[in-house]
Amino acid sequence: MPVASQRAQQMPASPIRKLMPYADAAKARGIDVIHLNIGQPDVLPPAEFWEAIIEKRPPVLEYTHSAGNATLRAKARAYYERVLGVQLDDSQLLVTTAGSEAIIFAMTACLNPGDEVIIPEPLYANYLGFAVQSGVKVVPIPTKIEENFALPPASVFADYITPRTKAILICNPSNPTGTIYGNEQLQGLRQIVLDNDLFLFADEVYRDFYYTDSPVTSILQLKGLENHAIMIDSVSKRFSLCGARLGFLVSKNAEIMQGALRMAQARLSPPGLAQLGVEAALDASESYYANVREEYRSRRDLLITKLADIPGILVPQIDGAFYATVRLPIDDSDRFCQWLLESFSYEGKTVMLAPASGFYSTPGMGKDEVRIAYVLKKERIELAVECLSKALAAYPGLKVTA
Amino acid sequence: MPVASQRAQQMPASPIRKLMPYADAAKARGIDVIHLNIGQPDVLPPAEFWEAIIEKRPPVLEYTHSAGNATLRAKARAYYERVLGVQLDDSQLLVTTAGSEAIIFAMTACLNPGDEVIIPEPLYANYLGFAVQSGVKVVPIPTKIEENFALPPASVFADYITPRTKAILICNPSNPTGTIYGNEQLQGLRQIVLDNDLFLFADEVYRDFYYTDSPVTSILQLKGLENHAIMIDSVSKRFSLCGARLGFLVSKNAEIMQGALRMAQARLSPPGLAQLGVEAALDASESYYANVREEYRSRRDLLITKLADIPGILVPQIDGAFYATVRLPIDDSDRFCQWLLESFSYEGKTVMLAPASGFYSTPGMGKDEVRIAYVLKKERIELAVECLSKALAAYPGLKVTA
Repeated sequence: MPVASQRAQQMPASPIRKLMPYADAAKARGIDVIHLNIGQPDVLPPAEFWEAIIEKRPPVLEYTHSAGNATLRAKARAYYERVLGVQLDDSQLLVTTAGSEAIIFAMTACLNPGDEVIIPEPLYANYLGFAVQSGVKVVPIPTKIEENFALPPASVFADYITPRTKAILICNPSNPTGTIYGNEQLQGLRQIVLDNDLFLFADEVYRDFYYTDSPVTSILQLKGLENHAIMIDSVSKRFSLCGARLGFLVSKNAEIMQGALRMAQARLSPPGLAQLGVEAALDASESYYANVREEYRSRRDLLITKLADIPGILVPQIDGAFYATVRLPIDDSDRFCQWLLESFSYEGKTVMLAPASGFYSTPGMGKDEVRIAYVLKKERIELAVECLSKALAAYPGLKVTA
Repeated sequence: MPVASQRAQQMPASPIRKLMPYADAAKARGIDVIHLNIGQPDVLPPAEFWEAIIEKRPPVLEYTHSAGNATLRAKARAYYERVLGVQLDDSQLLVTTAGSEAIIFAMTACLNPGDEVIIPEPLYANYLGFAVQSGVKVVPIPTKIEENFALPPASVFADYITPRTKAILICNPSNPTGTIYGNEQLQGLRQIVLDNDLFLFADEVYRDFYYTDSPVTSILQLKGLENHAIMIDSVSKRFSLCGARLGFLVSKNAEIMQGALRMAQARLSPPGLAQLGVEAALDASESYYANVREEYRSRRDLLITKLADIPGILVPQIDGAFYATVRLPIDDSDRFCQWLLESFSYEGKTVMLAPASGFYSTPGMGKDEVRIAYVLKKERIELAVECLSKALAAYPGLKVTA
């Protein structure tokens, strides 16, 4: 019997999936499981999305252009010019099957097997899977909750850069921390990238979710980084269209975009139905974006206020996305998250959290941290935090603090 | 400036794409370019597809299960039981982003970088791109037009099998030849696979397009091959839904399906909108399939009849799919196909063909062959063959035959 490849065997399992049977069992016992574990947005997409699909559906659903429909690409380029002031020509933007494919294209087009990509951790867990698939080695660089998960200085990056280092990958705003890397941090990163001739990948799918005074800086806006910056985007979060599977790969590096385009040609085309809808959704008014932002801002404010009342919790600054990685007074987040589902309830409810261990590539890290996704109506957030507070009071595995 | 990876640089360009500027220029000159070069079906999809999308569209388009919606998977499994008599459990079928993703999953889950996959050539050109992306080496094994592109015997396969050989990949019915590998050839392949402990990949996306007395045998039906057989399927051709990007990876090898599922989990979910529609389309009546088959059968019959009148042409047996690879009395198919667009027209028309050189991985092969896709209304097929006949009479690069 032929055996699976090493990469198949090494594909990491999602840390949340391990908990799913426990969540199902809890629900089967009649417990209301409040999901703080998943970033599935619940705000309605722009009405234009469904209208366009219904009105513009073709009789036969043909392949689109491998780079995406020309009309969609034009709309997307206009979007980047409007929100970022970045002018793109037609070869610098590729419509992808969501951010996932854009990341795989970026890794595959920029790195040879065995090359290294430095990623600040905690990190989006699926980067680890994409790296295994594309034969790329992830080198995690630590960031600290006490420092609001800020990027380390160049001197620390220097310790992680080897002759095989080919890229740095950031998620900005960050899943799983909610951190926004501001202009100063990005300028530092820019210099590191230039000094070491690296690619800079930025997963900017949470760009619209910022609660600071000014918008998030894109790596596309960094001067002199045109040949280094590879930007990954998606409409999954922006328009609550996770199931549409539509994203963008954007770069001014002609060689990379040529390689990515050929990969796009091999797989023929991105999803056609979603393209029809997203092209129209990109016409959404500014008020759509503002309303979404305000909704999440108020959820974040509520979450922070409520979490502050929990003894022993450490909540860092949360400026963007809709996640927070917080420290709890617990021994082991995997154990705690399982216990919440298996052995705890309060007034018929419990919460499902993502153990932060799954967002670290370094073994043993994140044991006292969990990721909270505040993608819930405010009354549910309130109930969830109350539940979490009661759980921590009852949990037998509290960390012994000095 | 950081440089692209070797795999990005090595990604092959589609042979048809090189011709596109010439086609565009011909159209700009007012010439009616009849496309015999692309397998984009034109028959309407089952009405259920659009009805389901309109009726069942959710307010927010969430991630689906990474393996695809459970209801869609159940329908697909029932489909395989009905058409193939093959019973599958829930872990043996994965909904993929069309056949393309299913092939990448199969290659990545089964082969380590540097491992070899034997593919009969002429072959579907995009296999070459997927192999570059996944670091797999394609070893083409020749098939001959004079033998109707039949698979070589085991003794010939033996010459191509090395310690790095891990799989054989067939497309059945074949793109680009229209060949169907019948039961005898498949039994031979079965023995080779068992004797050498290989995986057998079969791209069966043209299964419904057969013009023989009995349906196409699936590798899933071959006894004793449960752990070897990896079947790739898609609705792109079956339901004229190329733009939907929906397919299936099917295998009873638990280790491979586990690896593929983790890859599927990393990319979160296949396209959600298409899943709604395809689930309903799988309810299409038998008459839908029969009508589609009859339409293509009559197109094939017409094509064969008309081609027979062209002096010097060699048309092999064409039993399935909607392609034919034929030999023409020409010096160089790339040159001929370009000349058709650049320098020829007959009554305001010309034809666009795919040079067969692009379907061979072996350099220099296919120079006197072209692929014809008969995905056109019959009157257009008739015009196209007339045009081709006139072109061959006028072409200055006729092959000097002995």
